[in-house]
Amino acid sequence: MSANEPGKGLVTPRGFRAAGVVAGLKSSGASDLALVVNDGPEFGAAGLFTRNKVKAAPVLWSQQVLTGGRLRAVVLNSGGANACTGPEGFQTAHATAEKAAELLGCGAIEVAVGSTGLIGRQLPRDLVLAGVEKAVAELGATAEAGLAAATAIMTTDTVAKQCAHADGAGWSIGGTTKGAGMIAPSMATMLTVLTTDAVLDRAALEPALRAAVRVSFDRLDIDGVMSTNDTVLLLASGASGVTPEPELFTEALTQVCLDLAGQMQADAEGVTKRIMVRVTGAADEDDAVTVARTVARDSLVKTALFGSDANWGRVAAAVGYSDADVDPDRLDITINGSLLCRGGVAAGGRTDADLTGPDILVAIELGLGAGTAEIRTTDLSHAYVEENSAYPS
Amino acid sequence: MSANEPGKGLVTPRGFRAAGVVAGLKSSGASDLALVVNDGPEFGAAGLFTRNKVKAAPVLWSQQVLTGGRLRAVVLNSGGANACTGPEGFQTAHATAEKAAELLGCGAIEVAVGSTGLIGRQLPRDLVLAGVEKAVAELGATAEAGLAAATAIMTTDTVAKQCAHADGAGWSIGGTTKGAGMIAPSMATMLTVLTTDAVLDRAALEPALRAAVRVSFDRLDIDGVMSTNDTVLLLASGASGVTPEPELFTEALTQVCLDLAGQMQADAEGVTKRIMVRVTGAADEDDAVTVARTVARDSLVKTALFGSDANWGRVAAAVGYSDADVDPDRLDITINGSLLCRGGVAAGGRTDADLTGPDILVAIELGLGAGTAEIRTTDLSHAYVEENSAYPS
Repeated sequence: MSANEPGKGLVTPRGFRAAGVVAGLKSSGASDLALVVNDGPEFGAAGLFTRNKVKAAPVLWSQQVLTGGRLRAVVLNSGGANACTGPEGFQTAHATAEKAAELLGCGAIEVAVGSTGLIGRQLPRDLVLAGVEKAVAELGATAEAGLAAATAIMTTDTVAKQCAHADGAGWSIGGTTKGAGMIAPSMATMLTVLTTDAVLDRAALEPALRAAVRVSFDRLDIDGVMSTNDTVLLLASGASGVTPEPELFTEALTQVCLDLAGQMQADAEGVTKRIMVRVTGAADEDDAVTVARTVARDSLVKTALFGSDANWGRVAAAVGYSDADVDPDRLDITINGSLLCRGGVAAGGRTDADLTGPDILVAIELGLGAGTAEIRTTDLSHAYVEENSAYPS
Repeated sequence: MSANEPGKGLVTPRGFRAAGVVAGLKSSGASDLALVVNDGPEFGAAGLFTRNKVKAAPVLWSQQVLTGGRLRAVVLNSGGANACTGPEGFQTAHATAEKAAELLGCGAIEVAVGSTGLIGRQLPRDLVLAGVEKAVAELGATAEAGLAAATAIMTTDTVAKQCAHADGAGWSIGGTTKGAGMIAPSMATMLTVLTTDAVLDRAALEPALRAAVRVSFDRLDIDGVMSTNDTVLLLASGASGVTPEPELFTEALTQVCLDLAGQMQADAEGVTKRIMVRVTGAADEDDAVTVARTVARDSLVKTALFGSDANWGRVAAAVGYSDADVDPDRLDITINGSLLCRGGVAAGGRTDADLTGPDILVAIELGLGAGTAEIRTTDLSHAYVEENSAYPS
């Protein structure tokens, strides 16, 4: 695996251009509309969307688009989720795709749309369409263009998030993501676009994307909340002329997704601690995920870790109420390397664990089988409460 | 239904005595051990316990005791949960029951034990046993004795919680509870003792207790966390000589439990808003509970309400990711009387709803069937974070 090139992101793979512009959707006047274009020669694509039953209009539109397995372009906007907006909102998403298609010379059914921001308000359609026009005029394949797109999708994110991976065989993967709150099991108000110049069709892209997301974005759980707008898209231009082995491509895509998920964790709303919950010895992988997720979501665990308190009793309680096979007498809990609970009983003083740094590893051994899983989360801090009681997402 | 007599609580029904003493388990020096004694002539009892798979020693002991369906006494302590304490912890619970039994002249198998406080530390057995001795010496049937017992079980509670109901036919119900944090679907680090002088055996008490708890304590969900120690006990002395109709008794018991649950909600850690989530029009009652609980636990909903923001979009998102049948196009959301979302689309400005007061009603109509449910919760405030990052529960 070659080194990452974080400078370019989306446009690291050949065949892609990007832009980020001010459409006027954010009252702050910051950039709020991004466009990513695949110039081919191939146009294979795959997508994954929120499992929330209340789906935003752009999700409904893009799910329809993806049934074709081809994408020429993606339009993303911040400054409004276009969710709970009814037929009018759906028409806005549709009109956005039509506008981009008209300017790029393709069909609307080849253009996906993604939105993020406040739920329940109509997007000003005229501003969105004018923004698409502006973005088409500014398309470029430079590092600046990629960064502009990554910047335009930010909401409460404090930094733009990009990643790229170049393989020695001549193909590469790039990506950008946004999401700092509402990050949840099923991916959060997370908009992610991934690009590659590998020669891969939809049939190869879909399983690779599913495999990569399953162990990255799906295992980032900041507050257990699932958004109406989660969208992950993967576009392949084929411009490298190289078809990698499926396992090799999946592995590289997974690394890019893990890198982006790590950036989201580090920039989560109000984070003061980056927490990894690692479960081993579960009856199976599903049980391991269930236990890790339950601990990662537990408000009492998260507030204790905010207070740098290795309160393993709260971890034990969370393990116990998870919907997984658990034998209390086989439970070991180790926090930042200190074994605090062995066989369900106190093993050391909880002051033995040093939690003063920003990274905390909560390792839970269930002693039942070979199932393992890791879930990344953050602490529950004053800043989380502040940001989410004031920010009208 | 007669008026409540909140002054006496546990000892309102005839046949009961109570005490609350300083055993020295709390470093603050506050009272920390309560004893409740049933003087008969009947000794029927029922109990419900946490569904957490990691159960505290007193829960394991009391579950065993309750298989007999009889209780002569209950010993409760704050200042230590006696959870994750292994065989030594179980022996402490057993020794506590034996001590009380010896002093009261009954069998240890007729004495339940309940504990609350920090998980993972052994209780100082000598102090507990000396505390039992002291409590037996101070037993009384006065309002002061009932209040002393209610006070001795407090942890982060700021007020003692009592309730009593006297029926015109000559029987009554009394109760006390504690629990201000870690209050969850399955009852919380909640210790509750209910007493009655009605003539009812175990076969009558058990279904009444299950029915009352199902719609009261089980529908109070402060932070979704389930404790290792939750215990609800119901003791019947038969001293009134009256056997009420089962429906009448269940109804009165439910009212007492709802009153106590309301006191717990009002005193929850860091509460600034008392929130009722009411779901109507669900496919069935289970779905209504699922939707209400998902909304009640959603960190983004809770922080918005802390900020007095009627952010119905976050409510809609939570409804959408609940594990219940939901049709987004039939979803209505009304907050404090203002219809904000109709048919899944914005119906009014969210500033229409006045959330400045301490009580918030979030009413969700699903438009699918006749299922209804109410879940009580609180907001997620700075004080919640403060209390739970500093208090070593």
